[in-house]
Amino acid sequence: MQFSSSLLENAVNEFSKLPGIGKKTALRLALHLLKQDTKEVTHFSEVIAKMRSEIKFCQRCFNVADGDICSICSNSMRKHDVICVVESIRDVIAIESTQQFNGTYHVLNGIISPLDGVGPDQLNIESLIQRVQKEKTEELIFALNPNIQGDTTIYYIQKKLQPLLIRITTIARGIAFGGELEYADEMTLARSLQNRLPVEKYVSH
Amino acid sequence: MQFSSSLLENAVNEFSKLPGIGKKTALRLALHLLKQDTKEVTHFSEVIAKMRSEIKFCQRCFNVADGDICSICSNSMRKHDVICVVESIRDVIAIESTQQFNGTYHVLNGIISPLDGVGPDQLNIESLIQRVQKEKTEELIFALNPNIQGDTTIYYIQKKLQPLLIRITTIARGIAFGGELEYADEMTLARSLQNRLPVEKYVSH
Repeated sequence: MQFSSSLLENAVNEFSKLPGIGKKTALRLALHLLKQDTKEVTHFSEVIAKMRSEIKFCQRCFNVADGDICSICSNSMRKHDVICVVESIRDVIAIESTQQFNGTYHVLNGIISPLDGVGPDQLNIESLIQRVQKEKTEELIFALNPNIQGDTTIYYIQKKLQPLLIRITTIARGIAFGGELEYADEMTLARSLQNRLPVEKYVSH
Repeated sequence: MQFSSSLLENAVNEFSKLPGIGKKTALRLALHLLKQDTKEVTHFSEVIAKMRSEIKFCQRCFNVADGDICSICSNSMRKHDVICVVESIRDVIAIESTQQFNGTYHVLNGIISPLDGVGPDQLNIESLIQRVQKEKTEELIFALNPNIQGDTTIYYIQKKLQPLLIRITTIARGIAFGGELEYADEMTLARSLQNRLPVEKYVSH
């Protein structure tokens, strides 16, 4: 692409570094901002820069936070003896959006994946073990993506926690609500059969 | 969406104001920036803000420019008596990318569209007429989108320029290269037949 302004060219280059944003989309975004008030664009850029420089990570669960402890961990209305283990901050937001979970979280910040060179030491696993021991956790719920890396991570953490008397569960895997049986993959369908539920339990939900 | 950090929430809100960016994509962009160095994100935000506050529009053709006159208008190697009339800056970039045009541009900054309340006075049409008279333009090439608004705009400007002896052309409309006849709409196919070319001319291109 040829630009007649280096200011525009630089902005397009910056936008196209973002994931999923190609050169054409980057140009569209830059030209959109060009049409806005200078004040609004300044505000946009300040909010982004401020987020990166001032955001903190909760010292307890590693979720994003405005202070040392996130708003979920500092909420006394939530069950602090139930910890939901997730891969990333995005999963916390997804689960919070369901409004069905009243416990706390622990963000691993990744998943064990030897092929990608990610081992347990690079993740927030040691802090989870310590937290479970210190806080007398009752239940640990794994809400990891259903794939080999997720299963490996569950297995590893479970092994580490074996000496402790603690309930360890994982979110249900099965046919998605609204999904069609014939399009489900064999693995999902097989697991869904193995983990079948009594109908009363299903309906009461 | 529920966020445990207002800094993140504000950033997601700002991103989702951009065209074609929904809440989920905005979150992905914000979380991506969170993983980057603070220095890089500061640079990102500065480049965007600088683009908006320092960019200028060429006083001659209304293209984006770093100074008063854009790099195309100030280039003495280009044919200044051939003006290509386009709707927006994006079209200048698209045509420049073909590397087939060696004239100059005139950015109308929109198109006549009475339904959207856009009349000739809101566009850079008067400046085009004055420019053509002053600069002794030889040819005016319309490169507007092929729709009713585009045709109306061409008709309006052509009427205004009728007293002057000047060649007025429009880019060819027809079946796109690589396109298939059976999928072309009737209007395109009909015009493409009407404006058929001698084969020698087509091959020489």
